[in-house]
Amino acid sequence: MLELPRAESLRLLASVPVGRLVFTYQALPAIRPVNHLVEDDKVVIGLTPGSAIAGSTGQGGTVVAYEADSLDLSTRQGWTVIVVGIARLESEAAALRYRAELRPWLAGATTDIISISAEMVTGYRLVPASPATQSSTTLVP
Amino acid sequence: MLELPRAESLRLLASVPVGRLVFTYQALPAIRPVNHLVEDDKVVIGLTPGSAIAGSTGQGGTVVAYEADSLDLSTRQGWTVIVVGIARLESEAAALRYRAELRPWLAGATTDIISISAEMVTGYRLVPASPATQSSTTLVP
Repeated sequence: MLELPRAESLRLLASVPVGRLVFTYQALPAIRPVNHLVEDDKVVIGLTPGSAIAGSTGQGGTVVAYEADSLDLSTRQGWTVIVVGIARLESEAAALRYRAELRPWLAGATTDIISISAEMVTGYRLVPASPATQSSTTLVP
Repeated sequence: MLELPRAESLRLLASVPVGRLVFTYQALPAIRPVNHLVEDDKVVIGLTPGSAIAGSTGQGGTVVAYEADSLDLSTRQGWTVIVVGIARLESEAAALRYRAELRPWLAGATTDIISISAEMVTGYRLVPASPATQSSTTLVP
C-alpha cells in the first residue's frame, strides 16, 4: 500500500461523484453516502433538508470525515482517500451555485449544501501483493 | 428511497466483500475500507495488527458504524446498508476460523479479527426519480 501526496489524493477524490460522510449523531458514529465535488481545498456536499448532519453544522461547524474510494477486488487494485475537517453549512448564495454544479439528480431548490475544509487529507493506493507477501497484504493500515 | 427490512439489509451487506468501518480515533471521526463477512447478527472484519481501531476494541468493546453500498449513478439505482453496534476483538480461536473465511488476500497469521454486533441495521434502496420529482430526489435522508 502506497501513501499518496495530498494533491493526488484530492484529484482522485474529485474524479468520482460519490463518497461517504462520517459524523457523530446523537453520540453515535454515523455515515451516509452522498454526492460531492471538490473545489480548491473544500469538499462540497449536497444534503436534503432536515438531514441528520445539517442540524449539527451551525455557525461553529463540526468535525467530520469524508471518504471515497475505487476498489477493484478482482485485480486487487484501487485507492481510498479520507478527508478530515470542519463541515459548515454554506450560505444560500454559495449554495445556489453549488447546486448547479453537483449532479442534477441530487440538486433541488430545498437542498442544503455543506462544505468540508480539507484540513487533513490521507490517500492510499493499493498495490497488488506479490505471491511471496500475499498473506500479509491488506486493504488498510 | 425505500427503507429495507433488517433481514434484507443484512443479506445485501453479505453480498459484497468490502465496506467501511467508522470509529472514533484520537477524538476524531475515522473511516477505513475493510473486508467483511456477515455471520448471524455479526459483521466480521479483518484488520492488520496495530491498526487504529484494534487498540480501542478491548474487553468492553467500542461503538462503531459499518457501511456498505452498491450505487450505480448511471441508472440512479442501488442500495446502502448501515450497521451500528459494539465492536469487539475476537478470540484467537474464533479469529483462526474467520481468517479462513475472509478473502485470502486479506488474511494472514497476524491479522486481528473484530466483530460488530448488529444492534441497529438501516438499509435503503434507491428508487429512480420520475422526471416530475427528479429535482427533489437525493441519495440519502
